Amino acid sequence: MIGCDCAVCRSDDPRDKRLRSSIYIQTPEMAFVVDTGTDFRTQALRENIRRVDAVVFTHSHTDHIMGFDDLRRFSWKRGSMPVYASAETMTDLRRVFKFAFEATNPFPGYLKPEPHVVSGSFLLGKTQLTPLPVPHGDSEVSGYLFTRGDRNLIAYLSDCSAIPDKIAQKISGVECLIIDALREKPHPTHLSVGQALEVAGRIKPAQTYFTHIAHELAQAYEKRLPPRTRIAYDGLRLRF
Amino acid sequence: MIGCDCAVCRSDDPRDKRLRSSIYIQTPEMAFVVDTGTDFRTQALRENIRRVDAVVFTHSHTDHIMGFDDLRRFSWKRGSMPVYASAETMTDLRRVFKFAFEATNPFPGYLKPEPHVVSGSFLLGKTQLTPLPVPHGDSEVSGYLFTRGDRNLIAYLSDCSAIPDKIAQKISGVECLIIDALREKPHPTHLSVGQALEVAGRIKPAQTYFTHIAHELAQAYEKRLPPRTRIAYDGLRLRF
Repeated sequence: MIGCDCAVCRSDDPRDKRLRSSIYIQTPEMAFVVDTGTDFRTQALRENIRRVDAVVFTHSHTDHIMGFDDLRRFSWKRGSMPVYASAETMTDLRRVFKFAFEATNPFPGYLKPEPHVVSGSFLLGKTQLTPLPVPHGDSEVSGYLFTRGDRNLIAYLSDCSAIPDKIAQKISGVECLIIDALREKPHPTHLSVGQALEVAGRIKPAQTYFTHIAHELAQAYEKRLPPRTRIAYDGLRLRF
Repeated sequence: MIGCDCAVCRSDDPRDKRLRSSIYIQTPEMAFVVDTGTDFRTQALRENIRRVDAVVFTHSHTDHIMGFDDLRRFSWKRGSMPVYASAETMTDLRRVFKFAFEATNPFPGYLKPEPHVVSGSFLLGKTQLTPLPVPHGDSEVSGYLFTRGDRNLIAYLSDCSAIPDKIAQKISGVECLIIDALREKPHPTHLSVGQALEVAGRIKPAQTYFTHIAHELAQAYEKRLPPRTRIAYDGLRLRF
């Protein structure tokens, strides 16, 4: 964190250097990214991302949208960039990135969003995305369940302060749960480690990854977690 | 650049790895930053920035404002963050960062902007900033002249497609000209190398630094430039 001298901020473990939360998903048919936070360009360069066919948003907080314009490189190749978001998040995107949504005759290299308001499950290639509405403090954000064929592969819940039982049941037994676990101490808009473990206990995923980790939590904390429960880190790759 | 294999993007010269344009100014009385582009957090961490007493904006394009929220760390320490921008840029900042400008009871760590609409010269400590309105394609942006006592120290013109004679006269003989020089090939909204050299020929600064460099221009290009003309790079420090 800027201006911080805590043990995690001074850590030698490169995994303790964290950029904003996001995931990139490659499938045989297409590739897409969930959220374009402020670090999107840095992350795309680091991972040598060559293809983005769509972007899916969880919500419109700055740490999840401010890198949106850097999609221009992928939009330009395709002619436009399909954008999937809830009605509320799309309204915010339209306000913040007005120049992109309203441009009638932009330069060819400009981002040209193609908005898709999400109101239920949808397909990206052969991957089905099911929105998981969850509270994030006083607001509601969209987690997503990623399903291919009959496999519930990933539930991505990066920002949430609770998981209602209805949602937990929908993703029960998912292969991989990626869930908010900010720190040990409770926070008004994010799950704590204890709360995330309680949620995982209800969902019973094959494996759990904590994300949206604050600097109060070192990567080394992982060894104190139960089996099949890890702390995600920048650049982590998972195969299904 | 994302997805590019050109010689500069693959260069081994670390100075060819460029983040968004911005400058940070430390004076005996205070410290301030000009623009908070998308990379502001990364830049603040890299340079171990511990103090920001004000932010000054040139214009509201994404590469100059999208890191604004990361000022929260400095705003929180001070109680608020003085923001200097033209009326037009302030309107855009209020639209994009609505949550910060309109928040009535935010969490203590939230960014609390204190807007100052710039309509002429103003002081930050003992440094006088004089806005330099210049065309940037079809829009007008604010460069700034930084003066202390009787010394015209820096003219910062990061984004411009022309420098009107009236502006060139105002900054004539400035100690350091930092000026847009995107690439060799002309561009509708940025100066080319040839145009920037022509401008420098009119202004006759003691030294010139090119900024807002595109990936068409390697750092090594510097050796082809006239005396006292350099290409700025990330992390460059100048003393006056």
